[in-house]
Amino acid sequence: MKFCSECGSRAMEWRVPAEDNRPRHVCGDCGIIFYQNPKIVAGCLPVWEDRVLLCRRAIQPRYGFWTLPAGFMENGETTEEAAARETLEEASARVRIHGLYTVLSLPHVSQVYMMFRSELTDLDFGPGSESLEVALFREAEIPWDELAFPTISRTLKAYFQDRREGIFPLHTGTIVRAPGAG
Amino acid sequence: MKFCSECGSRAMEWRVPAEDNRPRHVCGDCGIIFYQNPKIVAGCLPVWEDRVLLCRRAIQPRYGFWTLPAGFMENGETTEEAAARETLEEASARVRIHGLYTVLSLPHVSQVYMMFRSELTDLDFGPGSESLEVALFREAEIPWDELAFPTISRTLKAYFQDRREGIFPLHTGTIVRAPGAG
Repeated sequence: MKFCSECGSRAMEWRVPAEDNRPRHVCGDCGIIFYQNPKIVAGCLPVWEDRVLLCRRAIQPRYGFWTLPAGFMENGETTEEAAARETLEEASARVRIHGLYTVLSLPHVSQVYMMFRSELTDLDFGPGSESLEVALFREAEIPWDELAFPTISRTLKAYFQDRREGIFPLHTGTIVRAPGAG
Repeated sequence: MKFCSECGSRAMEWRVPAEDNRPRHVCGDCGIIFYQNPKIVAGCLPVWEDRVLLCRRAIQPRYGFWTLPAGFMENGETTEEAAARETLEEASARVRIHGLYTVLSLPHVSQVYMMFRSELTDLDFGPGSESLEVALFREAEIPWDELAFPTISRTLKAYFQDRREGIFPLHTGTIVRAPGAG
């Protein structure tokens, strides 16, 4: 932050406010404190019979790589609404959500992925503006080396493993990577 | 936002940016878009034998009401680290986390609560600066009418019900309230 968005001052400081325990952006003139917090990335693992839907990214980072539909949760939404909206936006697909399936912390980028197991309600899907193509994949067809992010491969691996047992418990975990690697 | 924190301009607008689908704070001069997203509130349900730990709030909102230790997740943390840190800060208590237990969306305040079932590692706890007192409660002793937030009562009710069965599945849901009511 170069300027205070409240008073317009240039006197922005990066320091620990009184009665706090970590540095924040603080305005040296009006004293307002600007908090920054992790973002939720919500998405779906959309299933149709024995296949799962993947989107090939039309945007950076990881242009051209395959992903599950997911994106930043917006204010005013529930986590399930965010996951369904991202699936509609990126794959023009409608889903029935079965439940929260993976919750993965990415502390290096201050994100928490929340992926929902879901089923497609129909096969009328196709690429949204952020996707090059959208397709269904059987387990043997998954392009493991062309997946966009570790969160996606972790979610898909858990799913195919759990499918053998027919039970889908919540999976939680942490993914630590260099900044920018997702 | 009254001023652009990037260029200091007063020409802040609230409009839908190109290739977006909802209004954002946009600088009319330098064009930067400021995104605002939901915050995660992470916390613990700390258990010791047949009792759970509650904190009586020393801060607004809901000063004097009882709560589970919880607060805003910080950048660079995992969800589990955030939950344990809040428990240490508010109750000076150390916990062993057993698992994610409730995930509750509060779309009216753009928050997602993530509460972790955990057990106290010892009885050396006490009020942090945001608590008036900290105490252990058996089910029959819970001050149901003096709980701070619906997220807290929802989590406690689920816990005491699940404890009868001895299994603790993930509980997800949405709480819709008037702004300010938590």
